[in-house]
Amino acid sequence: MREDLDAAIARWRDLLGEEHVWTDPARLAAGARATFATTQRPEAVIRPADRAQVAQCVRIANDHDVPLYPVSRGENLGYGSRVPSRDGAVVLDLGRLDRIVDFDERLAYVTVEPGVTFRQLSRFLRTCRAREFASVTGGPADASVLANALERGDGSGPLGDRFAHVAGLEVVLPDGERLETGFGRFADAAITPLATWGVGPALDGLFSQSGLGVVTRMTIWLAPYPASFQMGWWTAAALPPVVDALRGLRLSGVVTSTTPVWNDLKLLGVVARYPWDEAGGTPLPDAVRLRMREHANLGRWNGTVSLYGASAAHGAALRDLVAAAIDGIAFQPGPAKPLDADEDACGPGLGVPHDRNVASLYWRKREVPTQLDPDADGCGFVWLSHGVPFEGGHAQRAADRVETELAAAGFEPCVALLGVTPRMLQLVASISYDRDVTGDDDRALACCTRARTALEAMGYPPFRAGLQALDPGRGASPVYDRFVDAIAQAIDPKHILRR
Amino acid sequence: MREDLDAAIARWRDLLGEEHVWTDPARLAAGARATFATTQRPEAVIRPADRAQVAQCVRIANDHDVPLYPVSRGENLGYGSRVPSRDGAVVLDLGRLDRIVDFDERLAYVTVEPGVTFRQLSRFLRTCRAREFASVTGGPADASVLANALERGDGSGPLGDRFAHVAGLEVVLPDGERLETGFGRFADAAITPLATWGVGPALDGLFSQSGLGVVTRMTIWLAPYPASFQMGWWTAAALPPVVDALRGLRLSGVVTSTTPVWNDLKLLGVVARYPWDEAGGTPLPDAVRLRMREHANLGRWNGTVSLYGASAAHGAALRDLVAAAIDGIAFQPGPAKPLDADEDACGPGLGVPHDRNVASLYWRKREVPTQLDPDADGCGFVWLSHGVPFEGGHAQRAADRVETELAAAGFEPCVALLGVTPRMLQLVASISYDRDVTGDDDRALACCTRARTALEAMGYPPFRAGLQALDPGRGASPVYDRFVDAIAQAIDPKHILRR
Repeated sequence: MREDLDAAIARWRDLLGEEHVWTDPARLAAGARATFATTQRPEAVIRPADRAQVAQCVRIANDHDVPLYPVSRGENLGYGSRVPSRDGAVVLDLGRLDRIVDFDERLAYVTVEPGVTFRQLSRFLRTCRAREFASVTGGPADASVLANALERGDGSGPLGDRFAHVAGLEVVLPDGERLETGFGRFADAAITPLATWGVGPALDGLFSQSGLGVVTRMTIWLAPYPASFQMGWWTAAALPPVVDALRGLRLSGVVTSTTPVWNDLKLLGVVARYPWDEAGGTPLPDAVRLRMREHANLGRWNGTVSLYGASAAHGAALRDLVAAAIDGIAFQPGPAKPLDADEDACGPGLGVPHDRNVASLYWRKREVPTQLDPDADGCGFVWLSHGVPFEGGHAQRAADRVETELAAAGFEPCVALLGVTPRMLQLVASISYDRDVTGDDDRALACCTRARTALEAMGYPPFRAGLQALDPGRGASPVYDRFVDAIAQAIDPKHILRR
Repeated sequence: MREDLDAAIARWRDLLGEEHVWTDPARLAAGARATFATTQRPEAVIRPADRAQVAQCVRIANDHDVPLYPVSRGENLGYGSRVPSRDGAVVLDLGRLDRIVDFDERLAYVTVEPGVTFRQLSRFLRTCRAREFASVTGGPADASVLANALERGDGSGPLGDRFAHVAGLEVVLPDGERLETGFGRFADAAITPLATWGVGPALDGLFSQSGLGVVTRMTIWLAPYPASFQMGWWTAAALPPVVDALRGLRLSGVVTSTTPVWNDLKLLGVVARYPWDEAGGTPLPDAVRLRMREHANLGRWNGTVSLYGASAAHGAALRDLVAAAIDGIAFQPGPAKPLDADEDACGPGLGVPHDRNVASLYWRKREVPTQLDPDADGCGFVWLSHGVPFEGGHAQRAADRVETELAAAGFEPCVALLGVTPRMLQLVASISYDRDVTGDDDRALACCTRARTALEAMGYPPFRAGLQALDPGRGASPVYDRFVDAIAQAIDPKHILRR
């Protein structure tokens, strides 16, 4: 109801100040743009300064029955950016909550608020000359560390299954109360930042990939710099053997970090530009793809293996094991003293994020600006994220199918298979297109839907989705749906936060 | 109500057959005995044969408002064995569900029902000549693999944080419906056994250390046999330096399995018998303790470090790193071919459980029978399980306090500090006493309560509890209690399964 909304906005203005409650059409329009077609528009954007204000904002929303959509940094590119999941919602922008609340070098953790970015955290740790680094995303460096973990994003280093390495969430519940998960409910527990679960049922999972609360604080675990960091690079014509070799290396603990596998197009999007002259239009002709692949020294399939050795001998032993398992892999040692090396020499494998992958969103744009803003610039980009057994045959079938679906729709199929954990590959395929080309918005989403349905039917359901497929498992199991709905109804009877 | 109970029992008899519904006083009395004083008595024991029957049993309980208490193998020694958490409950004994439902060697997992024991699983894998082994508990070999994980027990090997390495739970909800967690809700998903979380909120945690459902199936991940297994043994007079060294080895990934630290008494309970003649009674005089410690070549503090190398060079590099970190640690190589070695040569570190620790429950008994049955034999045994930062100073303070409390009450303080994960130690202290000594039941529980309160006040809350401290965090946070109660009320409005 408009009246309720106005009343809430008036109270938010009193609480936060005029400048932190946005209702002007230009800003709202900007907040309604993602990298694919979306219809939802925010009614307002409110920007609390701290955790207490978040709780107060939620209480006001409750009083007036206004739904909220929390956004940490709004860099959820390819999943809907910062666009709310439904109409009538007010965006709760947590960007001002950008404090690194705690850092313990001995016990290897930081505690952060939702506005803390990967870049900020990396700089903080390097400025402190910390002996440890954070797992960082391959996405935008200005994305939220907390929100990425909460969405179960993947990252670099030995703690790459990011949500598996967090603890002690503070959550503002839909009624505005503040809940501490894990051991945080015990006043002054020394172990709150140190353990995933507390005593009794473990609740953290309820707040990931969900709208059951606003997470306002989280502890993120860090990994010590290795004495020996090495990165191996391999290319292969055939996918199955290398996938099976990588699984063996992950299961045995030789490789502790994510093993990425990329097709040629995935990397061409990062290292090259769309060859408009040579291609004479879209899609990219096979012959040009082949020419570009060879020019860039890429294989049909490619990947890196990052090794974290605690001594030179340890690193050498790991390298020998990987070299024996993967034909022709070539290793390069990383910097011996990461803190004295420059950021580029470290890279994500040692906790320094970059924005090079973001440039690939401009693949079908004729120009790439110096300041990247894919939402505003009309870049088209949609993720398809499905789980596939970490096994050669499955990997091949899933990759074939997604490549075929995307190519049939006139897009270059960019495909990655990420070994974030040892038993399941995260198949992340993406469509890069130009939103200014008439019809491509529709074509891209329709193609995504077809591919998603096909992959699910093959036994490879989605592991993450955004506005392109809200609540993607809905309907798969009535018992499951009723169970989750009953919990949501108990926690959020007014639908204040539910997506 | 007696009438409701009788009606339910009649229906269970129809469903399961007379022989699987126990109501005779002798059996019920046996099911009411634990290793410390308990008051709760089961009204009956029902023993379904399979997962479908479990659901039917729960539905009958629902129809007649009869509370159930699920027990898998009833070997929860020191936490209440198989005694239900409240009066008026019927024990739902899952021991007949002892099927190993699935095994995949390539993807390294087994899927089991709740009745499958550690011994059974170990024998199964060795009989198959599997290349992988399961993490096994230090407790009874006939305990349930599934239930131990669900209670967040610890185990051997690189997958020792057991609940962190499971997937795809099937859960019978309090209304008798069957819920599949993770990707299991998608029909025929190939990745159900392979991934911890599915898509949307992650639910598995809700069913651990809780009474929100009956878990009837779980996938347990396996680790490949290492090419080089080595176990190091150390003793130390001072605790902090070795704790700090172990933390470093865990954080860097050099040591991937649990690092146990034991005081002398903890090990004397396993390797020796109470020296009645020399001691002249209880408690054990300090001089005798010292004499026994020296005789057994133990230190004030002791521990092992297990290393899993994927090659001889890998193993050697790991060993050198550990040797440099821990003074005087002595290594022994394990069997080169575990499957050709006998079970004893493998031991828990390579997935073979044993019952040697169970014998320590007879510490203050004059006789140890050949068939161990601590519940029936009047062994007194209570666990105190608290989380402590993995740091020397904290470890020392917590250990000192618990040793002092237990000694003051006239018990030998057995203390272990287990580095199951790299940042938190699981302090597990135990009291071994003789239930047939008048007053000791009361003294032991009172001592436990004092120690628990003291540790919690120091910032070290419990991470696990049984009948000695039901719902140990209750009252610590009203918001937390309301939240968990709201979920329980939504899932189990009739209190059929709630503890």
